[in-house]
Amino acid sequence: MNAIIISIGTELTTGQCLDTNAQWLSQRLTDLGGHVQSHVTVSDDVAKIAEAFRLAMSGADVVIATGGLGPTPDDLSREALSLALKEPLETDEIALKQLKSFFISLNRPMPPANLSQATRPKGCEMIPNPRGTAPGISHSSHSKHFFLLPGVPSEMKAMYEQSIEPLIAQHSSGARTVRSRLSVLGISEARLGDTLGNLMVPGRNPSVGTTAADGIISIRIVARGSSESEAQDLLKKDVQEVRSRLGEAVFGENEDTVASVVGHMLLDRGLTIATAESCTGGLIAKRLTDVPGSSRYFKEGFILYHNSTKSSRLGIPADLIDRDGAVSESVARAMAEGCRAVSGCDFSISTTGIAGPGGGCPPDKPVGLVYVGLAREDKTVAKRLMLGEHLTRDEIRDRTCHAALNMLRLWLIESR
Amino acid sequence: MNAIIISIGTELTTGQCLDTNAQWLSQRLTDLGGHVQSHVTVSDDVAKIAEAFRLAMSGADVVIATGGLGPTPDDLSREALSLALKEPLETDEIALKQLKSFFISLNRPMPPANLSQATRPKGCEMIPNPRGTAPGISHSSHSKHFFLLPGVPSEMKAMYEQSIEPLIAQHSSGARTVRSRLSVLGISEARLGDTLGNLMVPGRNPSVGTTAADGIISIRIVARGSSESEAQDLLKKDVQEVRSRLGEAVFGENEDTVASVVGHMLLDRGLTIATAESCTGGLIAKRLTDVPGSSRYFKEGFILYHNSTKSSRLGIPADLIDRDGAVSESVARAMAEGCRAVSGCDFSISTTGIAGPGGGCPPDKPVGLVYVGLAREDKTVAKRLMLGEHLTRDEIRDRTCHAALNMLRLWLIESR
Repeated sequence: MNAIIISIGTELTTGQCLDTNAQWLSQRLTDLGGHVQSHVTVSDDVAKIAEAFRLAMSGADVVIATGGLGPTPDDLSREALSLALKEPLETDEIALKQLKSFFISLNRPMPPANLSQATRPKGCEMIPNPRGTAPGISHSSHSKHFFLLPGVPSEMKAMYEQSIEPLIAQHSSGARTVRSRLSVLGISEARLGDTLGNLMVPGRNPSVGTTAADGIISIRIVARGSSESEAQDLLKKDVQEVRSRLGEAVFGENEDTVASVVGHMLLDRGLTIATAESCTGGLIAKRLTDVPGSSRYFKEGFILYHNSTKSSRLGIPADLIDRDGAVSESVARAMAEGCRAVSGCDFSISTTGIAGPGGGCPPDKPVGLVYVGLAREDKTVAKRLMLGEHLTRDEIRDRTCHAALNMLRLWLIESR
Repeated sequence: MNAIIISIGTELTTGQCLDTNAQWLSQRLTDLGGHVQSHVTVSDDVAKIAEAFRLAMSGADVVIATGGLGPTPDDLSREALSLALKEPLETDEIALKQLKSFFISLNRPMPPANLSQATRPKGCEMIPNPRGTAPGISHSSHSKHFFLLPGVPSEMKAMYEQSIEPLIAQHSSGARTVRSRLSVLGISEARLGDTLGNLMVPGRNPSVGTTAADGIISIRIVARGSSESEAQDLLKKDVQEVRSRLGEAVFGENEDTVASVVGHMLLDRGLTIATAESCTGGLIAKRLTDVPGSSRYFKEGFILYHNSTKSSRLGIPADLIDRDGAVSESVARAMAEGCRAVSGCDFSISTTGIAGPGGGCPPDKPVGLVYVGLAREDKTVAKRLMLGEHLTRDEIRDRTCHAALNMLRLWLIESR
């Protein structure tokens, strides 16, 4: 089943509102085994809407359009559908009755403008709206289906679930789509493409695609099968294949975060952690404590923004900071060791760096230079990150946090 | 100027990702007086992308397409543009040089897959990408402009602002739209509606609208004028009117955050601050240090997740915690006072509460119960927040952070 989704409204084309309907409908249609080939958004212009309807109807088996069904003069979808189908608008008596009883139930008189909401092009059917005044309109011919729904997300969703999904599911071949998302750190998107190349060939089932955001690469795997179990088997096989090719670079699946994965490992093994942050300013502690139940392994955190606090809280010798500078490998190590000693935790993480935009001293200490320290009973390490001056302050802090938690994750795997 | 925006990616047509680029670009083009006639989203299918490019180029003066410029095999926008223009892909020597030096700056070898990112159809120009490896591509003919940008929002936005907006502004007519956003804390959206009612009448210029998100209400003011200065005058008048009606509830304008506003006040007056967080787990310190230059007023932070650390770091008597519980007004006060004393700062903020989802003991200490403490030389206060069990852990932590920083803001205004 090929589908096109149309969103109607000048509030969308001017950017005043964000369209979430197209995404929601795409997910639902994809889950039914459908192939959404495109989304189209048009402003409140009757000729443009009619043209979009005509084009979509000729190009797809299923078209779902949302918006433009309100009672005001800028609601033009009914008229546009009439133009596209070359059928006149007529009043649907059942819809009119429902509209009238809707207003009676609210104990309000029906404004005359709402009368238009009971009209539809000749030959079309009404789709009941359990949550508002605007019924939808459907049109079917030659096993092609067109549905027009209100733009209000709660009404649109209720109507899709009640009236459209059952109809589409009936016509869809029992085909099902299932999906998974693997999250990867510490490998570039290009190298990922090299490693997974033959899985990413267009048209392959399952489809495998990658998206990079905030330094994390997501691998989307979408499997189609003639039944749920066939689709699940295909998905499972690909998930295993990707995991075996990428090894420890895959840190989690679906909703996992690096912090939640690290948290589960610490909890499972009864270990505790403390943090000593300079440039990340509390972000690592924040991420660790985002996870419900984190008080069972996260004990405390220090944010040491002034050099004096690095000495007073963690006992770092002032002359070490004077000699090597606060942003240095030796200070990152000393922070991690000091934090572990003072807190009495099994593990500690430290960060010190230049998040910018000011404060850099190139070439030795440019913006984006960060050291991450890790300490456990038998070992301390510090890693130098060069995050690049093209990143923003937020991005530098975010990447540092990912890198630090990922180092801890790899340590926990190694010491298992 | 007529515009069409194209978004490319199977992650969009399958609903795995929400497209925010089309909205952002629509806003910016509308601000320049442009008319965005449609958005089109297509999956990673080279023929479909090429068709969308051809159709858009024939129908609009300006076309901006985003996505499909990565180095992996599912990135097909370069090829599609080559098909649409019937021009072969060739390597751009300047882009190749930039790509190579980008990897040199990261001190990493360039994977071979990235080579494709330096190609463009013959006769096209490259658009520099200051933030990533994928340059954009532009094509102009007969005063029509086509731009292809990466889908990563931060890269897309930087490139639009640097290379595309100046070019479009040059060609656009005199009509201008200008906008401002005021941010409000501590007043309900309904009360705001009552206070601003007559400014919010549909069709009024400027238009005034409100949106609530994350406990902060944004007031959007959009003014249109036949010239930039006419639009700016109208905007300025409304901004002043809204500010005078809402007083101190307005904490900032446009990109201001509560943390940045508080930061400027502290900096202006040469004051320093430290934090002692329990339930917020570092979020307040993170927000304060999001602001560049915050090291001039933020000195240090304590995250005290275990009760023992509240005593050992800030000297809070263990029997006070035993008597009143860690989540109590007295402990919030003691945390704020202890933090101020230990850090030697002018101000301190503390939080202690139950962020959930577990850990609540209704009716006395339900999830969502939080105390925020504030201390300065002559005064300590603690405020009880009941954030409601319907909020998520993230929301409870976020609202606590807003409330704490807003309390500090009002204190700083009061003591001015």
